[in-house]
Amino acid sequence: MRPLTDSPIARDGKVLILAYDHGLEHGPVDFESVPETMNPETVFDIATHEAVTGFAVPKGVAEAHYPSYEDDVNLVAKVNGTSNLWMGEHDSAVNWSVDYAAEMGADAIGFTLYGGSNHEVEMAEEFRDAQEAARRHDLPVVMWSYPRGQGVKNDTKDGVIAYASRLALELGADVAKVKYPGSREAMEWVVDAAAPVKVIMSGGSKTDDLSFLESVEAVMAADGAGLAVGRNVWQRENPEPMLDALQRVIHEGQSAEEALAATA
Amino acid sequence: MRPLTDSPIARDGKVLILAYDHGLEHGPVDFESVPETMNPETVFDIATHEAVTGFAVPKGVAEAHYPSYEDDVNLVAKVNGTSNLWMGEHDSAVNWSVDYAAEMGADAIGFTLYGGSNHEVEMAEEFRDAQEAARRHDLPVVMWSYPRGQGVKNDTKDGVIAYASRLALELGADVAKVKYPGSREAMEWVVDAAAPVKVIMSGGSKTDDLSFLESVEAVMAADGAGLAVGRNVWQRENPEPMLDALQRVIHEGQSAEEALAATA
Amino acid sequence: MRPLTDSPIARDGKVLILAYDHGLEHGPVDFESVPETMNPETVFDIATHEAVTGFAVPKGVAEAHYPSYEDDVNLVAKVNGTSNLWMGEHDSAVNWSVDYAAEMGADAIGFTLYGGSNHEVEMAEEFRDAQEAARRHDLPVVMWSYPRGQGVKNDTKDGVIAYASRLALELGADVAKVKYPGSREAMEWVVDAAAPVKVIMSGGSKTDDLSFLESVEAVMAADGAGLAVGRNVWQRENPEPMLDALQRVIHEGQSAEEALAATA
Amino acid sequence: MRPLTDSPIARDGKVLILAYDHGLEHGPVDFESVPETMNPETVFDIATHEAVTGFAVPKGVAEAHYPSYEDDVNLVAKVNGTSNLWMGEHDSAVNWSVDYAAEMGADAIGFTLYGGSNHEVEMAEEFRDAQEAARRHDLPVVMWSYPRGQGVKNDTKDGVIAYASRLALELGADVAKVKYPGSREAMEWVVDAAAPVKVIMSGGSKTDDLSFLESVEAVMAADGAGLAVGRNVWQRENPEPMLDALQRVIHEGQSAEEALAATA
Amino acid sequence: MRPLTDSPIARDGKVLILAYDHGLEHGPVDFESVPETMNPETVFDIATHEAVTGFAVPKGVAEAHYPSYEDDVNLVAKVNGTSNLWMGEHDSAVNWSVDYAAEMGADAIGFTLYGGSNHEVEMAEEFRDAQEAARRHDLPVVMWSYPRGQGVKNDTKDGVIAYASRLALELGADVAKVKYPGSREAMEWVVDAAAPVKVIMSGGSKTDDLSFLESVEAVMAADGAGLAVGRNVWQRENPEPMLDALQRVIHEGQSAEEALAATA
Repeated sequence: MRPLTDSPIARDGKVLILAYDHGLEHGPVDFESVPETMNPETVFDIATHEAVTGFAVPKGVAEAHYPSYEDDVNLVAKVNGTSNLWMGEHDSAVNWSVDYAAEMGADAIGFTLYGGSNHEVEMAEEFRDAQEAARRHDLPVVMWSYPRGQGVKNDTKDGVIAYASRLALELGADVAKVKYPGSREAMEWVVDAAAPVKVIMSGGSKTDDLSFLESVEAVMAADGAGLAVGRNVWQRENPEPMLDALQRVIHEGQSAEEALAATA
Repeated sequence: MRPLTDSPIARDGKVLILAYDHGLEHGPVDFESVPETMNPETVFDIATHEAVTGFAVPKGVAEAHYPSYEDDVNLVAKVNGTSNLWMGEHDSAVNWSVDYAAEMGADAIGFTLYGGSNHEVEMAEEFRDAQEAARRHDLPVVMWSYPRGQGVKNDTKDGVIAYASRLALELGADVAKVKYPGSREAMEWVVDAAAPVKVIMSGGSKTDDLSFLESVEAVMAADGAGLAVGRNVWQRENPEPMLDALQRVIHEGQSAEEALAATA
Repeated sequence: MRPLTDSPIARDGKVLILAYDHGLEHGPVDFESVPETMNPETVFDIATHEAVTGFAVPKGVAEAHYPSYEDDVNLVAKVNGTSNLWMGEHDSAVNWSVDYAAEMGADAIGFTLYGGSNHEVEMAEEFRDAQEAARRHDLPVVMWSYPRGQGVKNDTKDGVIAYASRLALELGADVAKVKYPGSREAMEWVVDAAAPVKVIMSGGSKTDDLSFLESVEAVMAADGAGLAVGRNVWQRENPEPMLDALQRVIHEGQSAEEALAATA
Repeated sequence: MRPLTDSPIARDGKVLILAYDHGLEHGPVDFESVPETMNPETVFDIATHEAVTGFAVPKGVAEAHYPSYEDDVNLVAKVNGTSNLWMGEHDSAVNWSVDYAAEMGADAIGFTLYGGSNHEVEMAEEFRDAQEAARRHDLPVVMWSYPRGQGVKNDTKDGVIAYASRLALELGADVAKVKYPGSREAMEWVVDAAAPVKVIMSGGSKTDDLSFLESVEAVMAADGAGLAVGRNVWQRENPEPMLDALQRVIHEGQSAEEALAATA
Repeated sequence: MRPLTDSPIARDGKVLILAYDHGLEHGPVDFESVPETMNPETVFDIATHEAVTGFAVPKGVAEAHYPSYEDDVNLVAKVNGTSNLWMGEHDSAVNWSVDYAAEMGADAIGFTLYGGSNHEVEMAEEFRDAQEAARRHDLPVVMWSYPRGQGVKNDTKDGVIAYASRLALELGADVAKVKYPGSREAMEWVVDAAAPVKVIMSGGSKTDDLSFLESVEAVMAADGAGLAVGRNVWQRENPEPMLDALQRVIHEGQSAEEALAATA
């Protein structure tokens, strides 16, 4: 385990990862509502907000733009990922070697594991290689831990999400990115399951800012470390107020209501 | 990302790749209408035309003839490809190591990715190895980005072609070679999807020179970088007028009509 | 073969491995009855009991906590394992390279082999690599030898368990961890089948302490080397009396009845 | 491409390979009509005939006897091959590393590719490794180019054979060994398809010496480079007259009739 | 090919391999009739008989006991093998690297090939690696050549057994271990098929000592090199008379009747 206290992707133990791998995972359709987000520079700019502790992108996006932002953004190298044209059982291609990510100046590694997929064993072994390479470069590892595939009937069940955060601990990640299980009580179990591994919530409702921030507040109250968020930030015409609010809830311990009032 | 400004395969940001891998992909039947094109030297000679910024061939063709043309032709090493005798799900064998291509003096690497194929994950990982090897040799990478296979119902849809050009960005290519989506407006979306990655149109109608050149003109108007073309050039008794016209449309910014008039 | 007399995981030829890989193999549900066992430190503390000669955990758990316990606990690096979300034929991902385990200070390697699984051949070859790497680091190897899968109708039959312990010998393990075959006589055959390889019983009844300890007594009487135990120890509110009793039966040669009386 | 002018397997651009891999591909049944051919030395002796420019054998046969013949025979290391006990889709095991073949003194490499087989992609990638290793050792490569398997309905069609010789060019062989397409005209297309790669005919009718030699004559007239022959030579009680005739047709430019008359 | 005259596993060209891999291939059930054979030392002691030129065991058995017997026994490292719990198409896991076998002092390598199995191609490529590694260590290679699986209807047919011994030659073994084809005449063909590779008979009838020895006598008369035997020796209460008789038939050229009379 790498003490996250030494890593810029955590600040006083709090983590806010802005994720921008949707062009790979979903295609350009995800950029339609705010067309300028098609251009990675738009989202790199958003990632310079003080609330953000890490920016997760695939290799090509990092190669094209990270050199211009390396002083202002902490890079989370999202080393695997696959287009949704893929019709096979859930899997994720390893598109970026950890050695090359380290050479490019990455601050952390991001890796997706689909527990329960018929590719789980293969993905776990790819994770081993990536994780041990990250250790050699002294880089922390964030696991996108998403049970999915033949072995998973319901990936929003408490037990499945707690198993997901536990897998991050057992296999050697430093941060577990998991779905929000729906309540503070359930989140406490999910956080406990990961023991010293930090747990961050992935995504969340886009329909209502207050309920989104309340779920983040619940994560923090459950001793979670923060949030990984994508479209819910950069699919806004003006993402700054939401990032200001997340700064207050995640880094300053305010309630969702307080934060929303302060940034309204 | 490798600045294409340093690479001979782009000239003032414009790209015209002449492709000649049809003997591998389709067999000698493609040479029947102009039998002398069976001999690679015929097409190497065509590739010396000033309009052409890169000539894409498989390993054996390069080994046999590139040494005689290395002063006059920029070599795009097409490192994967498969015969159409192959009846399996879309796939492409990696026939040429990047190290050997670099040793032979290649100016760029060409690599086919079939997004949506049941071999997509495997091909993406082969692309990773080729792309990172190309980086070590400081070579730009052109992705033949062709969604195809089980996951792709219609590979001429705007969204599929824009996804194809986006994959080139996300996975670390420098140039995306994609199908023409049928209109300048659609092409603009496809070009935007690739952000700083250059997008070139592949192939196009052979039935009518004007409409072919008009589609190239539309690509340039949409901020595309140019064209990759094969049979539409070398399956002509005299390819020079068409190359002259492409020089005008791609490199000199003329309209299709002007270019065709000037070379008639 | 590595003389276990030189290894801390055996004491005077007796072995008691405390296993804690349930978070990986079964998920957090295994910790529900004694919630504090979710935290690996609780179980590391238990593993400091003098009766325990080795503590078997997956990589992530070792990375997080072993550095704090390295003076008090002998680490058995459990290098493969898979979640029970996996629905495929029995298999186990290799999550931990032996080189990295050795670098972390492991005292032994643990490896699961599912003889009879359709992955048996692949697992045996992974075992070869792990075992030969362990030899280079002078580490003993414990095989979790569990026939399972298409080729195994009944994994509690004497002949299957004796075959399991024999496989540990034939493939180069130093300790075979197998199911208890139900009687001292059957256990004698299982122990004989492993020849000089030490045989330890895995798990056993949780319903009744006396019958559990009697099966351990039968293992020792059959010239077995000891026990590997997990939930039957750490799923107790107070595991110390049971460990005291195991100390008496395994290391001091007392009967189950004597041991239970002394610790009651 | 390696200039065959520097290689002993071509003499003034003409090639006659004697092949003796039938023990591997067909089993001892092929030796029944002339039992002494079971002994490789019998066929090594035949290979010392001046007409023969290369002798193609698998690794074990070369290890056993080539050291005694290295001054009199040019060794073509046939690096892949499979018994006909194999019932799977057409495939060929790589039984001999090119490095070891080079160390043994091989003068060229022979490699079978089954275009159209469901193993075509895998075989092409194995060919890549063998071909690039051969380049490092400065050894020419002969491709046994035999379309076969799911994708090939009729492997004697002109178009299929011309595709086969083209694949040898595209993938980087120096000599293409293909089936005879039945006429000089068809052979001209097959030879043209390979451009500078030399094309040799494989096998041919055993029933009638004149028609066999006439097909060889047609190959030479079509600018083919020669012949690869096996049983049609060594399954004769006295192969010398046929080799004398082949010397005349291949190396001295005589007609089949002249050659047959001179050696009768 | 490695001259067996330099190897201790042949004595004046005669070979008698005692095989003891039954614990791996069949399980402990094979030791039931003579329970002390469960202990490898019992069989190592038998292997010290002067008639035995090599003792074939898997890695774990060699690691455990060979150091105590290295002055008295020649080790044949049986590098692949699989339990009969395996229900898949015939295959054999490579359990022992040749480098490690050489480091342990092995005098030869043993390797099983199942020609005709759907794993034949994969096994042949594993054989290549093992054989070429053995060459680097100057170790002879014994092939257990057993056609078996989908492609083999009858593995006792002359033609199949002759093909098996031929495969040993073609792929680079020094000794072929094959089934006895039932008569001296058939064995002559099998021996001829292997040309200079030595052929030894595997196993044979256990019901009648005279007919067993007569089959060995027939093998020697057919210019075979000897025998590989397992249970027919060590499943006897007293194996010494049979080994004395084999010494007479194999090494001293006596008839089966003479040998049996002398040792009765």
